[in-house]
Amino acid sequence: MVELQTPHLDAVFHALSDPTRRAMLHRLTIGEHSVSDLATPFRMSLAGASKHIKVLESAGLVRRRIEGRTHLCQLEAARLAEAQQWLSTYEKFWSARLDDLEAILREEDASIAGKPATPPLSNKVGE
Amino acid sequence: MVELQTPHLDAVFHALSDPTRRAMLHRLTIGEHSVSDLATPFRMSLAGASKHIKVLESAGLVRRRIEGRTHLCQLEAARLAEAQQWLSTYEKFWSARLDDLEAILREEDASIAGKPATPPLSNKVGE
Repeated sequence: MVELQTPHLDAVFHALSDPTRRAMLHRLTIGEHSVSDLATPFRMSLAGASKHIKVLESAGLVRRRIEGRTHLCQLEAARLAEAQQWLSTYEKFWSARLDDLEAILREEDASIAGKPATPPLSNKVGE
Repeated sequence: MVELQTPHLDAVFHALSDPTRRAMLHRLTIGEHSVSDLATPFRMSLAGASKHIKVLESAGLVRRRIEGRTHLCQLEAARLAEAQQWLSTYEKFWSARLDDLEAILREEDASIAGKPATPPLSNKVGE
Protein backbone atom coordinates (compact mmCIF):
# COMPACT_ATOMS: atom_id res chain seq x y z
CA MET A 1 0.00 0.00 0.00
CA VAL A 2 1.13 3.53 -0.79
CA GLU A 3 1.03 4.53 2.90
CA LEU A 4 4.08 2.43 3.75
CA GLN A 5 6.23 4.52 1.45
CA THR A 6 5.07 7.85 2.86
CA PRO A 7 5.55 7.91 6.64
CA HIS A 8 5.49 11.71 6.90
CA LEU A 9 2.12 12.32 5.27
CA ASP A 10 0.15 13.04 8.48
CA ALA A 11 2.46 15.93 9.40
CA VAL A 12 2.84 17.23 5.84
CA PHE A 13 -0.90 17.34 5.09
CA HIS A 14 -1.58 18.83 8.52
CA ALA A 15 1.00 21.57 7.87
CA LEU A 16 -0.60 22.32 4.49
CA SER A 17 -4.15 22.54 5.90
CA ASP A 18 -3.62 26.12 7.07
CA PRO A 19 -3.64 29.07 4.61
CA THR A 20 -1.05 31.05 6.65
CA ARG A 21 1.38 28.15 6.52
CA ARG A 22 0.79 27.66 2.79
CA ALA A 23 1.41 31.38 2.25
CA MET A 24 4.63 31.14 4.29
CA LEU A 25 5.85 28.29 2.08
CA HIS A 26 4.92 30.34 -0.98
CA ARG A 27 7.00 33.23 0.36
CA LEU A 28 9.99 30.94 0.92
CA THR A 29 10.00 30.00 -2.78
CA ILE A 30 11.73 33.32 -3.49
CA GLY A 31 14.45 32.63 -0.90
CA GLU A 32 15.39 32.49 2.76
CA HIS A 33 13.38 34.71 5.16
CA SER A 34 13.71 35.57 8.83
CA VAL A 35 10.87 34.64 11.19
CA SER A 36 9.88 38.32 11.53
CA ASP A 37 9.85 38.73 7.72
CA LEU A 38 7.52 35.76 7.50
CA ALA A 39 5.26 37.18 10.23
CA THR A 40 4.90 40.69 8.71
CA PRO A 41 2.24 40.17 5.97
CA PHE A 42 -0.09 38.35 8.37
CA ARG A 43 -0.13 41.03 11.06
CA MET A 44 0.59 38.39 13.63
CA SER A 45 2.84 38.30 16.65
CA LEU A 46 6.30 36.80 16.38
CA ALA A 47 5.09 34.07 18.75
CA GLY A 48 2.13 33.31 16.46
CA ALA A 49 4.34 33.14 13.37
CA SER A 50 6.87 31.02 15.24
CA LYS A 51 4.16 28.51 16.12
CA HIS A 52 3.23 28.12 12.45
CA ILE A 53 6.89 27.80 11.47
CA LYS A 54 7.37 25.08 14.09
CA VAL A 55 4.53 23.09 12.46
CA LEU A 56 6.23 23.50 9.08
CA GLU A 57 9.58 22.50 10.58
CA SER A 58 8.25 19.38 12.27
CA ALA A 59 6.67 18.36 8.95
CA GLY A 60 10.13 18.74 7.37
CA LEU A 61 8.94 21.51 5.03
CA VAL A 62 11.10 24.28 6.49
CA ARG A 63 14.67 24.28 7.75
CA ARG A 64 15.71 26.94 10.27
CA ARG A 65 19.26 28.20 10.83
CA ILE A 66 20.44 30.75 13.36
CA GLU A 67 22.68 33.62 12.32
CA GLY A 68 23.57 35.79 15.30
CA ARG A 69 20.19 36.70 16.77
CA THR A 70 18.27 36.05 13.58
CA HIS A 71 16.41 32.83 12.81
CA LEU A 72 16.43 32.24 9.04
CA CYS A 73 13.96 29.88 7.36
CA GLN A 74 14.42 27.96 4.14
CA LEU A 75 11.99 25.89 2.09
CA GLU A 76 12.53 22.11 2.14
CA ALA A 77 10.42 20.82 -0.73
CA ALA A 78 11.26 17.09 -0.70
CA ARG A 79 8.37 16.12 1.59
CA LEU A 80 5.96 17.87 -0.77
CA ALA A 81 7.11 15.36 -3.37
CA GLU A 82 5.88 12.53 -1.10
CA ALA A 83 2.49 14.23 -0.83
CA GLN A 84 2.28 14.62 -4.58
CA GLN A 85 3.28 11.00 -5.08
CA TRP A 86 0.41 9.94 -2.81
CA LEU A 87 -2.06 12.16 -4.70
CA SER A 88 -0.88 10.97 -8.10
CA THR A 89 -2.22 7.48 -7.35
CA TYR A 90 -5.72 9.03 -7.51
CA GLU A 91 -5.13 10.82 -10.81
CA LYS A 92 -6.97 8.23 -12.89
CA PHE A 93 -10.10 8.79 -10.77
CA TRP A 94 -10.34 12.51 -11.30
CA SER A 95 -9.35 12.11 -14.96
CA ALA A 96 -12.24 9.67 -15.44
CA ARG A 97 -14.58 12.14 -13.72
CA LEU A 98 -13.40 14.99 -15.97
CA ASP A 99 -13.95 12.76 -19.02
CA ASP A 100 -17.53 12.11 -17.81
CA LEU A 101 -18.12 15.86 -17.36
CA GLU A 102 -16.74 16.57 -20.82
CA ALA A 103 -19.07 13.97 -22.32
CA ILE A 104 -22.06 15.55 -20.51
CA LEU A 105 -21.12 19.04 -21.73
CA ARG A 106 -20.71 17.81 -25.32
CA GLU A 107 -24.13 16.14 -25.09
CA GLU A 108 -25.67 19.39 -23.78
CA ASP A 109 -24.00 21.43 -26.56
CA ALA A 110 -25.34 19.03 -29.15
CA SER A 111 -28.80 19.22 -27.60
CA ILE A 112 -28.75 23.07 -27.62
CA ALA A 113 -27.70 23.00 -31.28
CA GLY A 114 -30.79 20.89 -31.97
CA LYS A 115 -28.84 17.80 -32.83
CA PRO A 116 -29.03 14.48 -31.05
CA ALA A 117 -25.69 13.75 -29.35
CA THR A 118 -25.48 10.05 -30.19
CA PRO A 119 -25.87 8.55 -32.68
CA PRO A 120 -25.09 11.44 -35.09
CA LEU A 121 -28.12 11.52 -37.40
CA SER A 122 -28.69 13.67 -40.49
CA ASN A 123 -30.82 16.63 -39.46
CA LYS A 124 -31.44 18.47 -42.71
CA VAL A 125 -34.82 20.20 -42.86
CA GLY A 126 -36.69 21.90 -45.72
CA GLU A 127 -34.46 20.97 -48.57
CA MET B 1 -1.53 33.67 -6.29
CA VAL B 2 -2.34 29.96 -6.44
CA GLU B 3 -4.49 30.15 -3.28
CA LEU B 4 -7.24 32.08 -5.08
CA GLN B 5 -7.86 29.17 -7.43
CA THR B 6 -8.08 26.58 -4.68
CA PRO B 7 -10.64 27.61 -2.05
CA HIS B 8 -11.11 24.08 -0.70
CA LEU B 9 -7.50 23.34 0.21
CA ASP B 10 -7.86 23.81 3.99
CA ALA B 11 -10.54 21.13 4.20
CA VAL B 12 -8.90 18.79 1.68
CA PHE B 13 -5.45 18.84 3.32
CA HIS B 14 -7.05 18.50 6.77
CA ALA B 15 -9.02 15.46 5.59
CA LEU B 16 -5.84 13.89 4.18
CA SER B 17 -3.82 14.46 7.37
CA ASP B 18 -5.28 11.36 9.03
CA PRO B 19 -4.12 7.82 8.06
CA THR B 20 -7.58 6.30 8.69
CA ARG B 21 -9.19 8.78 6.32
CA ARG B 22 -6.50 8.18 3.68
CA ALA B 23 -7.05 4.41 4.04
CA MET B 24 -10.80 4.93 3.63
CA LEU B 25 -10.23 6.86 0.40
CA HIS B 26 -7.91 4.09 -0.78
CA ARG B 27 -10.64 1.53 -0.10
CA LEU B 28 -13.16 3.58 -2.09
CA THR B 29 -10.94 3.38 -5.17
CA ILE B 30 -12.24 -0.16 -5.73
CA GLY B 31 -15.86 0.99 -5.55
CA GLU B 32 -18.74 2.13 -3.37
CA HIS B 33 -18.73 0.94 0.27
CA SER B 34 -21.20 1.18 3.13
CA VAL B 35 -20.19 3.05 6.28
CA SER B 36 -19.95 -0.23 8.21
CA ASP B 37 -17.76 -1.76 5.47
CA LEU B 38 -15.45 1.23 5.77
CA ALA B 39 -15.36 0.93 9.57
CA THR B 40 -14.54 -2.82 9.68
CA PRO B 41 -10.75 -2.89 9.00
CA PHE B 42 -10.08 -0.21 11.61
CA ARG B 43 -11.86 -1.94 14.49
CA MET B 44 -13.67 1.26 15.24
CA SER B 45 -17.24 2.02 16.18
CA LEU B 46 -19.74 3.02 13.52
CA ALA B 47 -19.86 6.44 15.19
CA GLY B 48 -16.07 6.79 14.94
CA ALA B 49 -16.05 5.80 11.27
CA SER B 50 -18.96 8.11 10.58
CA LYS B 51 -17.04 11.03 12.07
CA HIS B 52 -14.12 10.39 9.72
CA ILE B 53 -16.48 10.03 6.75
CA LYS B 54 -18.12 13.35 7.64
CA VAL B 55 -14.69 15.04 7.46
CA LEU B 56 -14.13 13.46 4.04
CA GLU B 57 -17.62 14.52 2.92
CA SER B 58 -17.22 18.12 4.04
CA ALA B 59 -13.91 18.27 2.14
CA GLY B 60 -15.83 17.08 -0.94
CA LEU B 61 -13.78 13.87 -1.19
CA VAL B 62 -16.64 11.46 -0.51
CA ARG B 63 -20.26 11.47 -1.64
CA ARG B 64 -22.81 9.59 0.47
CA ARG B 65 -26.12 8.20 -0.79
CA ILE B 66 -28.79 6.45 1.19
CA GLU B 67 -30.29 3.18 -0.05
CA GLY B 68 -32.95 1.94 2.35
CA ARG B 69 -31.16 1.84 5.69
CA THR B 70 -27.67 1.68 4.20
CA HIS B 71 -25.42 4.70 3.73
CA LEU B 72 -23.18 4.14 0.70
CA CYS B 73 -20.00 6.13 0.15
CA GLN B 74 -18.32 6.93 -3.13
CA LEU B 75 -14.94 8.53 -3.88
CA GLU B 76 -15.05 12.08 -5.30
CA ALA B 77 -11.56 12.65 -6.63
CA ALA B 78 -11.89 16.11 -8.21
CA ARG B 79 -10.78 18.00 -5.09
CA LEU B 80 -7.63 15.87 -4.94
CA ALA B 81 -6.80 17.37 -8.33
CA GLU B 82 -6.86 20.85 -6.73
CA ALA B 83 -4.45 19.67 -4.06
CA GLN B 84 -2.14 18.19 -6.65
CA GLN B 85 -2.29 21.39 -8.70
CA TRP B 86 -1.18 23.36 -5.63
CA LEU B 87 1.68 20.92 -4.95
CA SER B 88 2.83 20.92 -8.58
CA THR B 89 3.83 24.60 -8.27
CA TYR B 90 6.59 23.40 -5.88
CA GLU B 91 7.86 20.66 -8.18
CA LYS B 92 10.82 22.67 -9.46
CA PHE B 93 12.05 23.09 -5.87
CA TRP B 94 12.17 19.42 -5.01
CA SER B 95 13.57 18.59 -8.46
CA ALA B 96 16.43 21.03 -7.83
CA ARG B 97 17.02 19.47 -4.42
CA LEU B 98 17.07 15.95 -5.89
CA ASP B 99 19.58 17.14 -8.51
CA ASP B 100 21.78 18.47 -5.68
CA LEU B 101 21.51 15.15 -3.81
CA GLU B 102 22.37 13.21 -6.96
CA ALA B 103 25.47 15.38 -7.48
CA ILE B 104 26.56 14.77 -3.85
CA LEU B 105 26.07 11.01 -4.22
CA ARG B 106 28.04 10.94 -7.47
CA GLU B 107 30.82 12.89 -5.77
CA GLU B 108 30.84 10.41 -2.86
CA ASP B 109 30.90 7.42 -5.22
CA ALA B 110 33.80 8.92 -7.11
CA SER B 111 35.61 9.61 -3.85
CA ILE B 112 35.11 5.99 -2.64
CA ALA B 113 36.44 4.72 -5.96
CA GLY B 114 39.54 6.86 -5.37
CA LYS B 115 38.80 9.19 -8.21
CA PRO B 116 38.34 12.95 -7.95
CA ALA B 117 34.69 13.81 -8.78
CA THR B 118 35.23 16.91 -10.92
CA PRO B 119 36.98 17.49 -13.18
CA PRO B 120 37.11 13.85 -14.40
CA LEU B 121 40.83 13.08 -14.55
CA SER B 122 42.54 10.00 -15.93
CA ASN B 123 43.36 7.75 -13.00
CA LYS B 124 45.24 4.87 -14.53
CA VAL B 125 47.74 3.32 -12.13
CA GLY B 126 50.50 0.80 -12.68
CA GLU B 127 50.49 0.60 -16.42
